Amino acid sequence: MAVNLSPPDPTSLYPVPGVELGIAMAGIRKPDRKDLLVMRLAPGASVAGVFTQNRFCAAPVILAKKHLKNPIRALVVNTGNANAGTGRDGLARALSVCRALASRLNCRPNQVLPFSTGVIMEPLPVDRIHAGLPGALARNAGWLEAAEAIMTTDTVPKAFSRKVKLSGGEATVTGTAKGAGMIRPDMATMLGFVATDAKVAQKALQSIVKRVADRSFNCATVDGDTSTNDSFMLIASGVGVEARSEKDRKILEQAVLDVSQRLAQAIIRDGEGATKFVTVTVQRGRSEAECRKAAYAIAHSPLVKTAFFASDPNLGRILAAIGNAGVKDLDTSKVDLYIDDVRVARSGGRDAQYREEQGIQAMKKPEFTVRAVLNRGKAAATLWTCDLSFDYVKINAEYRT
Amino acid sequence: MAVNLSPPDPTSLYPVPGVELGIAMAGIRKPDRKDLLVMRLAPGASVAGVFTQNRFCAAPVILAKKHLKNPIRALVVNTGNANAGTGRDGLARALSVCRALASRLNCRPNQVLPFSTGVIMEPLPVDRIHAGLPGALARNAGWLEAAEAIMTTDTVPKAFSRKVKLSGGEATVTGTAKGAGMIRPDMATMLGFVATDAKVAQKALQSIVKRVADRSFNCATVDGDTSTNDSFMLIASGVGVEARSEKDRKILEQAVLDVSQRLAQAIIRDGEGATKFVTVTVQRGRSEAECRKAAYAIAHSPLVKTAFFASDPNLGRILAAIGNAGVKDLDTSKVDLYIDDVRVARSGGRDAQYREEQGIQAMKKPEFTVRAVLNRGKAAATLWTCDLSFDYVKINAEYRT
Repeated sequence: MAVNLSPPDPTSLYPVPGVELGIAMAGIRKPDRKDLLVMRLAPGASVAGVFTQNRFCAAPVILAKKHLKNPIRALVVNTGNANAGTGRDGLARALSVCRALASRLNCRPNQVLPFSTGVIMEPLPVDRIHAGLPGALARNAGWLEAAEAIMTTDTVPKAFSRKVKLSGGEATVTGTAKGAGMIRPDMATMLGFVATDAKVAQKALQSIVKRVADRSFNCATVDGDTSTNDSFMLIASGVGVEARSEKDRKILEQAVLDVSQRLAQAIIRDGEGATKFVTVTVQRGRSEAECRKAAYAIAHSPLVKTAFFASDPNLGRILAAIGNAGVKDLDTSKVDLYIDDVRVARSGGRDAQYREEQGIQAMKKPEFTVRAVLNRGKAAATLWTCDLSFDYVKINAEYRT
Repeated sequence: MAVNLSPPDPTSLYPVPGVELGIAMAGIRKPDRKDLLVMRLAPGASVAGVFTQNRFCAAPVILAKKHLKNPIRALVVNTGNANAGTGRDGLARALSVCRALASRLNCRPNQVLPFSTGVIMEPLPVDRIHAGLPGALARNAGWLEAAEAIMTTDTVPKAFSRKVKLSGGEATVTGTAKGAGMIRPDMATMLGFVATDAKVAQKALQSIVKRVADRSFNCATVDGDTSTNDSFMLIASGVGVEARSEKDRKILEQAVLDVSQRLAQAIIRDGEGATKFVTVTVQRGRSEAECRKAAYAIAHSPLVKTAFFASDPNLGRILAAIGNAGVKDLDTSKVDLYIDDVRVARSGGRDAQYREEQGIQAMKKPEFTVRAVLNRGKAAATLWTCDLSFDYVKINAEYRT
């Protein structure tokens, strides 16, 4: 059901020297499913990350934030259980996973970053994860398998790769992410991991990850529900060339951004029940913040989303959503609205030239852009979202059964 | 499909002396459907109201706000077309309806309050409304018919009635409302009209309507989309006894509140696709505002609403929603969560005593209460909401076809 999204060709995904991947079927929630991923990093690797703003952030998020200040040797990711809303016991369980992996890698538990995704408020089955670790460490996996191992309700594995030339030579950037539901990243997506073999200092890496998150995962929303487990990690294994100049770091950041934007868009294309991929752009606002507000109001309105699903240009719903966005002193008589190149509303009312067939034609396509022009400033913002379909309800009504 | 809601027994709806109702089938959007309501008021009646906060407020809302300062002689309500997102032309059309009715009633156009509900951004078919007026004025209708005449996607007409004793004698309070979708009243519901024959000064009436709205319609949400046309009007025809003392006004306000709360709850029971009526209560917060924030976050989460639909106690989704509510410095390790009397989460994590069968049992019922206890203050707030079902998507994907 994903919108214009196929599984990546494994040959298009370049391995990242200094990052070893291993996966296992640990039976965490369901049998015969890749559900455990271990990423081992070369000594001296830098890791930076951004995390969910949800106050009920998951136990692994709490630990990962804490451990991030140490030299990181490995990341461990399980699906099937989010270990969120699990209180103190959840923290102990997440730590026990770090301990088990650390003892096998001869490092300290606080040099391991744990990540979990899946059902909230159920105890993490640590015994199964412990039992799955030897298999994951024994088996060398590629990025496609890593992408498969972190899927929950995703229907398509998501991974992208780039090579860039830095002053000292070529560097690789490869990443994977998972999404599908509870997607309104605020700092980061559900889970995203992008790695490069380039050498980048942790401080520079942290500022890159923040800027990239704001222009990639933080522009994606399926249902407006910010997850408890959002984590987006950027790894620089350092075994490759050094990004030594400002220019090098810019080139590298662009590649990280490119991979991250594709991952973020892939999450929306594969959003729960998605049949449309919609870009929402709000232009000529007073600030980027108010443009984002208006864009989120459009992207989160269940009425707008069901109209997307129906390819029904019931476009007054979009105006109503803009009116609800909390944009201060918005003069609605100045607002124009477009679907792709079709001007639907002008000066706050229906465009006299607009014929409904044009709207239907534009919205029938699996991808289109909704563009609102506020005509009160120079700022703009863009989000990616999907429709609200029968299948969204079906998937979420039946998720645990 | 409405949850525990039947059409009112017409004999339970007391006529309000000084308020004459008339309805017609004007064919505004569909033929053979009651779609036009005229309410004629006795000379000297007071009218107060609260209106949508949506910046794209509809043309009739703009006019009604303006006309409200004059002595009002009539209200005219059409369904099938919201006359919203229609710019200047929409204002002209709304005014022409006021003019047509005023000329038949020998009053000024600015003594008529217009209301519209239905599809947004389509031109109001004024000719059909003009043509329908004589019929509406000729025919004396009861409150049940009035309730039917303002329905859109509502499946059940909504009206309630009370009699109260004031110091000077008995007074009647009867009201009707419509809802179903685009329901997250902010000042008022989609359309609500409550009338009494008591005599109340406009200023006192306005403060009553504001307080009542905050404790009735403003506590209801179906889908978080605040309509462009929300209007809640309180009419005191003044032909009955005078509410002369503070005590009288309190008694009257209580009856208006009672009728309004039942109307607001009826709107949720008949929410688009609703199969559950859910009361969301957040307690022991620092302020009512933060309790409302948390309650809205729960009530608007598509993931929580689909879990309601499935009777699936996937209750971590509720914790996640609370975590997203923007409650400042929320200490999640203090949060308790209940479904009816079942404690599900304690101190931010799953209650060790809780068994899933208990949650399923509670959520299977067509009505239940979600209660979150923040344990950081003394304030509380309550909302009413419904689930997100296949039928919500179906209704809204097919609304105009």
